[in-house]
Amino acid sequence: MPDSSSSPGPQFSPWREKSWRVIFLSDTPAGRAFDVVLLVLISASVLVVMMESVEPLRLEHAQAFQISEWIFTLLFTIEYIVRVLVVRQKRRYVLSFFGIVDLLSLLPTYLSLFLVGSHYLMIIRVLRLLRMFRVLKMARHFGQANVLLNALRASSPKIAVFLFAILTLVSIEGTVMYLIEGAHNPGFSSIPQSIYWGIVTITTVGYGDVAPLTVIGKILASFIMLTGFSIIAVPTGIVSAELGKELSQVRMDRRRCGECGWTGHDPAAKFCKHCGHQLGD
Amino acid sequence: MPDSSSSPGPQFSPWREKSWRVIFLSDTPAGRAFDVVLLVLISASVLVVMMESVEPLRLEHAQAFQISEWIFTLLFTIEYIVRVLVVRQKRRYVLSFFGIVDLLSLLPTYLSLFLVGSHYLMIIRVLRLLRMFRVLKMARHFGQANVLLNALRASSPKIAVFLFAILTLVSIEGTVMYLIEGAHNPGFSSIPQSIYWGIVTITTVGYGDVAPLTVIGKILASFIMLTGFSIIAVPTGIVSAELGKELSQVRMDRRRCGECGWTGHDPAAKFCKHCGHQLGD
Amino acid sequence: MPDSSSSPGPQFSPWREKSWRVIFLSDTPAGRAFDVVLLVLISASVLVVMMESVEPLRLEHAQAFQISEWIFTLLFTIEYIVRVLVVRQKRRYVLSFFGIVDLLSLLPTYLSLFLVGSHYLMIIRVLRLLRMFRVLKMARHFGQANVLLNALRASSPKIAVFLFAILTLVSIEGTVMYLIEGAHNPGFSSIPQSIYWGIVTITTVGYGDVAPLTVIGKILASFIMLTGFSIIAVPTGIVSAELGKELSQVRMDRRRCGECGWTGHDPAAKFCKHCGHQLGD
Amino acid sequence: MPDSSSSPGPQFSPWREKSWRVIFLSDTPAGRAFDVVLLVLISASVLVVMMESVEPLRLEHAQAFQISEWIFTLLFTIEYIVRVLVVRQKRRYVLSFFGIVDLLSLLPTYLSLFLVGSHYLMIIRVLRLLRMFRVLKMARHFGQANVLLNALRASSPKIAVFLFAILTLVSIEGTVMYLIEGAHNPGFSSIPQSIYWGIVTITTVGYGDVAPLTVIGKILASFIMLTGFSIIAVPTGIVSAELGKELSQVRMDRRRCGECGWTGHDPAAKFCKHCGHQLGD
Repeated sequence: MPDSSSSPGPQFSPWREKSWRVIFLSDTPAGRAFDVVLLVLISASVLVVMMESVEPLRLEHAQAFQISEWIFTLLFTIEYIVRVLVVRQKRRYVLSFFGIVDLLSLLPTYLSLFLVGSHYLMIIRVLRLLRMFRVLKMARHFGQANVLLNALRASSPKIAVFLFAILTLVSIEGTVMYLIEGAHNPGFSSIPQSIYWGIVTITTVGYGDVAPLTVIGKILASFIMLTGFSIIAVPTGIVSAELGKELSQVRMDRRRCGECGWTGHDPAAKFCKHCGHQLGD
Repeated sequence: MPDSSSSPGPQFSPWREKSWRVIFLSDTPAGRAFDVVLLVLISASVLVVMMESVEPLRLEHAQAFQISEWIFTLLFTIEYIVRVLVVRQKRRYVLSFFGIVDLLSLLPTYLSLFLVGSHYLMIIRVLRLLRMFRVLKMARHFGQANVLLNALRASSPKIAVFLFAILTLVSIEGTVMYLIEGAHNPGFSSIPQSIYWGIVTITTVGYGDVAPLTVIGKILASFIMLTGFSIIAVPTGIVSAELGKELSQVRMDRRRCGECGWTGHDPAAKFCKHCGHQLGD
Repeated sequence: MPDSSSSPGPQFSPWREKSWRVIFLSDTPAGRAFDVVLLVLISASVLVVMMESVEPLRLEHAQAFQISEWIFTLLFTIEYIVRVLVVRQKRRYVLSFFGIVDLLSLLPTYLSLFLVGSHYLMIIRVLRLLRMFRVLKMARHFGQANVLLNALRASSPKIAVFLFAILTLVSIEGTVMYLIEGAHNPGFSSIPQSIYWGIVTITTVGYGDVAPLTVIGKILASFIMLTGFSIIAVPTGIVSAELGKELSQVRMDRRRCGECGWTGHDPAAKFCKHCGHQLGD
Repeated sequence: MPDSSSSPGPQFSPWREKSWRVIFLSDTPAGRAFDVVLLVLISASVLVVMMESVEPLRLEHAQAFQISEWIFTLLFTIEYIVRVLVVRQKRRYVLSFFGIVDLLSLLPTYLSLFLVGSHYLMIIRVLRLLRMFRVLKMARHFGQANVLLNALRASSPKIAVFLFAILTLVSIEGTVMYLIEGAHNPGFSSIPQSIYWGIVTITTVGYGDVAPLTVIGKILASFIMLTGFSIIAVPTGIVSAELGKELSQVRMDRRRCGECGWTGHDPAAKFCKHCGHQLGD
């Protein structure tokens, strides 16, 4: 997803034009090299945050983590400043999804300076973990993700209705299971707990931390599982149909009417369906 | 799903006509506001029932729960009375799915008055939980749910046959597993118990509360899992095919060219793609 | 699946003809009543076998189980004898799938007579459980099962290849997991045990009786799960495509060529694709 | 997948030509017999490696395992030598996928000779387990596997993007769960551990070795499960669409009518369905 709309425009210096091309596009060797270096940096940075969360590693290599953290932050800061300098529509970039992600990937480290020695331990933990959102910087480099997101967005209203239906179903199933199992089974001690079990079951995750114990509970659970088994088919069907539709549109005829410019004709069509003009090959 | 069939008709007073429009449709600002208020009320009411089932919360805030319960019940009672007054075909509404749901969402609270101090604890519990069915009142506001239900209804005869086949398969698999594991494993102590395991396994829920212990049992279980893996594809295939069929029917145009009789035109087409003749409506 | 091929033929007595119609078809009120009675009998009989396997019930109601067992067996025996008498191609029926199932549903009870007091406890258990196969008698009454079986049969060569691929994959994954986890984790103590874990994981059943403990094991397990996640799509895709193909064939044009009788024409076709003769409506 | 490209050519002796046909193809009775013998040998050999990994069996039948291992190795060595002798493009075969698999299936046993009594226990274990790769020799005999691989390869770029999206999602979900559950639950003691839980959950495997304990953790987990439930549809949709596309291409006829240029004829059609003109090849 190159931010093509934020082109620096013709009145900029050639140096700025070139930097913009390197940083925002990947159609030159320098641009591709920049992308690779950035991807390596992001991966390494995310890996460091992950490893720092492992307690034995954190205690042993505390200083190494701090140093590498500052190196990553400085590099991402330089990247952010250069992006802002080079881009024409600065405000638009800063407020864009990737602008916010870029800022979020360096802010926590600076903010932690003001909180050293303070008692706000939870805030420090949250700040430290906000750095994990750097992983979203990667999304810039995966063009095809766009296609998948489109397919998901197209089918999202139907999936939302479906999720609502699931929640209604699970609420009622959970209530009935609470009535049946509640007295004998600590895993069904309240309705929310039973609904949690219902979701774990109907999505076929099945941790097993909560499972029915009574005979009636097991019969009802079997029924719920077999129901869920059929329901799992619904979102699959929706997305399959949506993807199939999109793919078939891609394969559609590429002919353009010579008279009115209309496209999207049937491969068998001889005349433009918009203006009736004869179609060429 | 607006109950459009229960229109009050022209001979009603304008006030009644307007109330009906606000309550049953959502094509006016007042109608939409009414819908939003109702959705918030239902959600809050269901949340209260859920929270009341959590024992520490119930003991601590007993009075607050009771008061809010009566507020919700009174509001739903007013809603029910107004609906009955405003609707033309009163009998039809009262006996409709949503009429019964509306009644069920207020009846339990009133009935509990007559049972205070009684020994029928189970009945009180059931009554209290019947209030969870208020969640079904929400279904009125999700139009697209209809489409999904149609797709499910269209494929339900095939899915019923499929579920019957699954039950037959699981009965026989459970019996064989009972024969193999029964003597060594308390989880397979009877055929119904083994069938329960079979359903948990074939739907890929896999709680793990029952799992094979013997070598032959594990081999057979592996076979059953791989079988289930292929079988999971069947309902998906049925619903996918059904949804694809429905979507393709929606996109199909039923217009026929007056000149050459060609059909299957694009809904946006103005001219026949076969002979170039103008298309009518 | 009516055994229509075993029609009694014209030279039989009218009584026999009528009995055959009642027993093998369900196009008369008597035939439908016979079907319902038989379905109830089979269900009750299977339920009794299931309940008998529950030890407390077996000990308490031993005599009741024995009596009902003999009643069911006698009724099924009468059914089997009448079927043999009434059918024309006796040999064909006896050796057919349903003929064997019918025989199997009564044989075990008689055989148990000769084994009373014997030491062959395992044989008695197997005989007792063979009665569960009575559930297969039901399959006769589900016509649509045929359609599903056809779809499964059409896609079975591809699914067999797919299952073989899964087994190969799981063998290698299990071996690697055995190498990594074997020394630390009793659940991976041998290659077959690791393969069992692999099947439980890749089919997303996930009992949790065996789970990786080491860091490398968990990383590899994550990779295997994400792989399985993509692989689960393959049989679904195969069966979906197969079902879609079958459904689209059903929707195909019903026109028959007046000249050569060829069917299966494209709805847009004007001429028979077999002989070139013009097609009517 | 017969290595048809490595045909011995006309200038070879008839004996060599015949051996090549027997070993590389299966279009003669001898060729088919060779295939069956080889499949039995591979299966037996893999079974022996698997059984040897079971400790009680290994200790009891150590000698039997060693003898059978040498027999298998010698037979596979003969097979490999004959393949190399008979094939024309020796280098190409040796460096091909199956050439390497054939070599790998015999090398470990010979290498173990040089390591007897050594301290490199890990290397010996790895060598012993490399023999499990013999299972890949089987892939030669499953022609249809090719079709499935093609479908998977065609959809692999989209599935790779999808897997990257999943990993990003799971990283962020795991971080949030670590923040919520980390202090109370040893299963969420670090971000990598939480990501492991996220993968186990989103793939619906759900071992249950790690499960949320706090209320907020359970609510978030429910949300993650319902999300995963919708996401599971994406790869299915991709592969279904790809398989459907491939199947429809196979069924499409590429013939064009010489009279009117109409395409899309049924493969069995002899005449153009548009103008009735005879179709060529």
